[in-house]
Amino acid sequence: MKENRVIGKSIPRLESGDKVTGKLQYLEDVKIAGMLHGKILRSSVPHGKVLKIDASQAEKLPGVVAVLTRDDVTDNSHYDSHYGPVFKDQTIVALDKVRYVGDPVAAVAATRPEIAEEALERIEVEYEELPVVTDPEEAVAEGAPILHETLLLPEQGFADLKDVRPLEGTNICNHVHIEKGEVENGFAESDHVFEDRFSCPPTQHATLETFTAIARFEPSGKLTLWSTTQNPFVIRDQIAKIFHLPLSRVQVIVVNIGGGYGSKLYPKLEPIAVALAHKTKRPVGITLNREEVFQTLTKHAARIYLKTGVKKDGTILARQCRIYLDTGAYAEIGPRVLNKSAYGAAGPYEIPNVMIDAYLVYTNRAPAGAFRGFGLTQATWGHECQMDMIARALKMDPVELRLKNLLDDGGEFITGERLNFLGMKECLVKTASAIDWDTKSVAQDSTKVRGKGLACFIKATLTPSISSATVRLNEDGSATLYVGSVDIGQGSDTVMAQIASEELAIPMDQISVVRSDTDSSLYDLTTSSSRTTFHMGRALQLAAQDVKKQLACMVAPIFQISPEDVVFENQSVKSGEGQDFSYQDLLVKHYGIRGANLVGRGVVKTSTINEKGEHQHSAFWVAGTGAAEVEVDKESGLVRVLHYVAGADVGKALNPLACQGQLRGAAITGLGQALLEELVYEEGLLINPNFFDYNLPRFLDLPEKMTTVIVERPNPNGPYGAKGVGETGLIPVAPAIANAIEDALGVRITELPITPEKVFQALQEKEARERQEATVSRTP
Amino acid sequence: MKENRVIGKSIPRLESGDKVTGKLQYLEDVKIAGMLHGKILRSSVPHGKVLKIDASQAEKLPGVVAVLTRDDVTDNSHYDSHYGPVFKDQTIVALDKVRYVGDPVAAVAATRPEIAEEALERIEVEYEELPVVTDPEEAVAEGAPILHETLLLPEQGFADLKDVRPLEGTNICNHVHIEKGEVENGFAESDHVFEDRFSCPPTQHATLETFTAIARFEPSGKLTLWSTTQNPFVIRDQIAKIFHLPLSRVQVIVVNIGGGYGSKLYPKLEPIAVALAHKTKRPVGITLNREEVFQTLTKHAARIYLKTGVKKDGTILARQCRIYLDTGAYAEIGPRVLNKSAYGAAGPYEIPNVMIDAYLVYTNRAPAGAFRGFGLTQATWGHECQMDMIARALKMDPVELRLKNLLDDGGEFITGERLNFLGMKECLVKTASAIDWDTKSVAQDSTKVRGKGLACFIKATLTPSISSATVRLNEDGSATLYVGSVDIGQGSDTVMAQIASEELAIPMDQISVVRSDTDSSLYDLTTSSSRTTFHMGRALQLAAQDVKKQLACMVAPIFQISPEDVVFENQSVKSGEGQDFSYQDLLVKHYGIRGANLVGRGVVKTSTINEKGEHQHSAFWVAGTGAAEVEVDKESGLVRVLHYVAGADVGKALNPLACQGQLRGAAITGLGQALLEELVYEEGLLINPNFFDYNLPRFLDLPEKMTTVIVERPNPNGPYGAKGVGETGLIPVAPAIANAIEDALGVRITELPITPEKVFQALQEKEARERQEATVSRTP
Repeated sequence: MKENRVIGKSIPRLESGDKVTGKLQYLEDVKIAGMLHGKILRSSVPHGKVLKIDASQAEKLPGVVAVLTRDDVTDNSHYDSHYGPVFKDQTIVALDKVRYVGDPVAAVAATRPEIAEEALERIEVEYEELPVVTDPEEAVAEGAPILHETLLLPEQGFADLKDVRPLEGTNICNHVHIEKGEVENGFAESDHVFEDRFSCPPTQHATLETFTAIARFEPSGKLTLWSTTQNPFVIRDQIAKIFHLPLSRVQVIVVNIGGGYGSKLYPKLEPIAVALAHKTKRPVGITLNREEVFQTLTKHAARIYLKTGVKKDGTILARQCRIYLDTGAYAEIGPRVLNKSAYGAAGPYEIPNVMIDAYLVYTNRAPAGAFRGFGLTQATWGHECQMDMIARALKMDPVELRLKNLLDDGGEFITGERLNFLGMKECLVKTASAIDWDTKSVAQDSTKVRGKGLACFIKATLTPSISSATVRLNEDGSATLYVGSVDIGQGSDTVMAQIASEELAIPMDQISVVRSDTDSSLYDLTTSSSRTTFHMGRALQLAAQDVKKQLACMVAPIFQISPEDVVFENQSVKSGEGQDFSYQDLLVKHYGIRGANLVGRGVVKTSTINEKGEHQHSAFWVAGTGAAEVEVDKESGLVRVLHYVAGADVGKALNPLACQGQLRGAAITGLGQALLEELVYEEGLLINPNFFDYNLPRFLDLPEKMTTVIVERPNPNGPYGAKGVGETGLIPVAPAIANAIEDALGVRITELPITPEKVFQALQEKEARERQEATVSRTP
Repeated sequence: MKENRVIGKSIPRLESGDKVTGKLQYLEDVKIAGMLHGKILRSSVPHGKVLKIDASQAEKLPGVVAVLTRDDVTDNSHYDSHYGPVFKDQTIVALDKVRYVGDPVAAVAATRPEIAEEALERIEVEYEELPVVTDPEEAVAEGAPILHETLLLPEQGFADLKDVRPLEGTNICNHVHIEKGEVENGFAESDHVFEDRFSCPPTQHATLETFTAIARFEPSGKLTLWSTTQNPFVIRDQIAKIFHLPLSRVQVIVVNIGGGYGSKLYPKLEPIAVALAHKTKRPVGITLNREEVFQTLTKHAARIYLKTGVKKDGTILARQCRIYLDTGAYAEIGPRVLNKSAYGAAGPYEIPNVMIDAYLVYTNRAPAGAFRGFGLTQATWGHECQMDMIARALKMDPVELRLKNLLDDGGEFITGERLNFLGMKECLVKTASAIDWDTKSVAQDSTKVRGKGLACFIKATLTPSISSATVRLNEDGSATLYVGSVDIGQGSDTVMAQIASEELAIPMDQISVVRSDTDSSLYDLTTSSSRTTFHMGRALQLAAQDVKKQLACMVAPIFQISPEDVVFENQSVKSGEGQDFSYQDLLVKHYGIRGANLVGRGVVKTSTINEKGEHQHSAFWVAGTGAAEVEVDKESGLVRVLHYVAGADVGKALNPLACQGQLRGAAITGLGQALLEELVYEEGLLINPNFFDYNLPRFLDLPEKMTTVIVERPNPNGPYGAKGVGETGLIPVAPAIANAIEDALGVRITELPITPEKVFQALQEKEARERQEATVSRTP
């Protein structure tokens, strides 16, 4: 077999140099001629009726071109008032109600941002405050204030959300129920039953770049929308529907993105920007400040009740799980997040009896949406903590307990299907080995203790889905790639260039990737769910192969060989017997004139029915393991991660450096979520919506050592066997650290984040308990 | 046969409303963040050695970021100093010599345009003046100053210019020689031989929009170039070569164009803008003022010597022609213009013996390049004036003389090939009828006389050439069109939308045409030569048919019919037996998920070998006739065009309104060239480089009545039979008017423009001659 030329090589990201030197432009740097600046007035109350909005004083301010209020939005024949990716529960600006502090109430377009800002203060709004609920379990309790009286379903939803089940008259906007076997029988047969509660707070994506949208209507009526989105085609689709435009008249352009992590998937400020552009007939740009980003999208807080029945030897017989995800005031893509949480709740284990009930609940907090890991992080926090608690109770080694129950190639998932191309076991074993699992780590200092912990999971990717790509072979034999997926910093453009370079035998520096633009790229469903390499990479590979096929058909008659026998090397077609043409010369020869170029197409669609006609929950499976070695200061409760190992089955590492980068970056985010991060609400008001008060990991918080373990269990449907790695590194971090802390200290923290206070207090309680037990045992 | 739904309908141009309301943005309106403003220092002498350039004082001016001089350009490893579409005779800025007043010598990039302007004044340049030549015949004479000592040919020239023949050591940079039969025998057999000289002055395109270029290097090294070009792919190719970039790293974007007429085809200010962006590492925009446009490109002045031998009955036996075209200081695309002039010099007549020699000559004037009509206007000025002079001498009706010799379907062209799909005769006859040829027109006022004249021609299109298009069917059944050709006001986008609408059964308002952008569109050779409808229209039709084929293959198995039997109607596929799917529903059904779109491709390439393997000079032939009725004021020599008829064989009028618009607009330009326009040089200095002193037609100069005659002789290779009409209206105007003046007054003007002074003086001379003849005849 021919050796790969660029695939599997650690090629630095194409744009890295420009990023570290600060040269790269982001959307906030882009100014459109004649652009007005938009600012959004947001609700100051967490729940209320909007009694009155008076914008007349704002409109009088010189430089203010328009104020957008519910008066513009209601009964407007040019656009809809309601929208949303799953339910039409959002409105462009508030109509009769506001549902959280930060809910958009009005917007101003002015010639300068400061004027728009000043105008906001002149808009008078009167509210009648309503009872507030900010806890998902309180929100489902009898008598809780209801946020949405009715829910509108969109005409055409996502294919994977056909069964979304809101519970009318409650705050539950989706309920997922999964059953396998007879869970009660399982518990009855078990030697031990464990019941625990775990919780995760709401957190924030904390992308360095905030959100920007610039909307411009051409005089012809065509809308150009620049957006900091990970999902240009979804934005195009949603905006076209809201504003009653054919897709041919909406172009969404994405420039460089400063981090997404799931926060930039669905419409946010875009409908307001477009409505302002529509009203003013001028381009309008809006950039959110940091506080507004905190008010725009968060990660779902979770409450997880986990009940697991095991035999004495550690075999898990039954698992029941109840999950509440707090989706805030609007569902956003929460129903899908809930789905992923529910299907991940039993963990990467083969369990005969399972019952899962997951609820997505409205509360008066900022909307929660996708977050790297997509609900799996919360689910994994539950089952991976409990696995160690079970191991401890059974006095088993946690790795041994996991291996005993682990799902691997051929194992049966909770849906009843058999899993394929899954390197879970190899990943677990190698990660354990990398943290030197069998060696006890000892602190130098007597006030400190050390421990090790690990956690593992498998994750599905969004299925069904679709990606399409085109590759243009230029007149000079260079290539231009068109991909609708967005390089949000994960390095996908580099990987796409590698795939094209490999397939077409064109050097990397002759390849350009066109930035995502719905006019120049074919459809891609989404840049999320660790799906880009698998889907778009494969689509691109097919597109490149389509170009090769065209070239082969051109040259085969000249070479007098079959098209299949044409060899591609060094930007040339070769007969294998000494004849060759550079691509450039072949195009000239074929068309009789310089200037012809070629375009190749590739489409990848995945389905919930596999090639054999069987149901499949996911087009591919990701397996990951995290292992942590920690040192805990017993006097302060401070946890320091000495060594962190991120292990992943990536199918095939197309670019090992990029895989490592993804794993490390994700693990650091996970570390923040494990130890530091929490959105703190007081009476419905978020009190830390900024980077001073919201505790992100600093460089000094990072592990002293980080290791990555890359397992390659190829999936034949991915390009060169590649699967995905975008989310893997994040998901197991918190339970791995919590397990290491228990290993070190013997205390169990079940509520994230694991702050020094919680550790210290747990240690105090443990010592008090031990003292008491000692007293009791000393008592005759 | 099914009736066309939108083809053949007079649909107003898509952008007309935005143009007349002033809403449309042109490139001068576009500002790029961080953009510097460039200005060009131009030579003040018509010919000279550059002894010294000192930019140090300019560089010190606050706000000046860079000055570009020959020091930057010479031996620069990042780019070439020389460039040009046919010869590399141009330099980015002057090296050792300047060759005309206006030759770029240096350029400044500054934070504000006024600063750049001021900096220009601080650049010291010393010249050693050299002898000047501004007349093409003087320039070929012995001892004339030579402008270019050597000529560099580019590595890869245009396919149609393989045989370009410069005469080393002279100012002749191309010589075309055409021979058919034995011209001397032809003259010997003739009853009459006519020898005449005709001349045309240099003129200007006078586009309302001047030239703008904005160059920006991405940090990655990719170049984005916004340009007011009619030829984005040629600009991309040339700039890539000059700046040593693969085509994948050069993107040329064209926004709305305010008129081209051939002036915006090849690099002009673009290399300077790119070199400044390269030096400053910032975006640089340059907009030329009106005077600079006059200094940048003009139309070739011509001197034509025509010798024609005829029999008594009017049969032309021989024609010999010598043409000198003045290409100014640089050849630009002059060699192709010369070619067209030479092949058009014998006119639309079947002549057994022909010899043509055409010379392209350097002089110390602004470069001359393409101009609507591409050398045909000059050639037609010669032969169509002489035809009437012959008719007058033979006392034949000019129409009858033409019809006797006319080339029509099946006639033999000077290349020896037979012409097809040519409606020359029908066009001539119908145009003559429209001007009411057989009725003598009489002036009301005794100081005025009236006359009628006409002129006709056939024109080739650039062959070989290539155009490619893509059509995207969007997820909702709307369509987006990608065409590399540029709508320069001729209405091509509207026609493309009509073709797609017709083929795909999609309403016009669901179709968008993406503006020309080399990244999003496939290759198109050029927007010129009346070629867009024929080439790009057909490519687009093929692309739309490719989409239909894909849809048919998807639905045929569902309908259980053959793909060929699928019916396309109302954005739907139908079985013809009651089954149907909207495009949108079919895509969802086929892919199992919303979001798939399709792309169809179409490529048209033409060759100098036709389908039968015979040589063809042109992929299609345009035939045109112009007829004028004029009134001449004998006391002032003032000519007023009372009625002008523009006749054209367009193959098929896809949009009759657009054809009429093209014919009328072109005829008005022709009227300016006939009666008003001339660039006036004094000692190498152009003295009327502005719209005050350069005499363009005003509304009051327009004919009182204008009529269009549209003949449809379909060419099966064009979309629905369409050929082209962009240049047709202009070419015959001047000789038609000159012939009408002779009809009215009996005087013949052979030098354009036909000013009142020339008419008055010719009349005076005629009357003096008549008086003298009368005196002679009265003398016994």
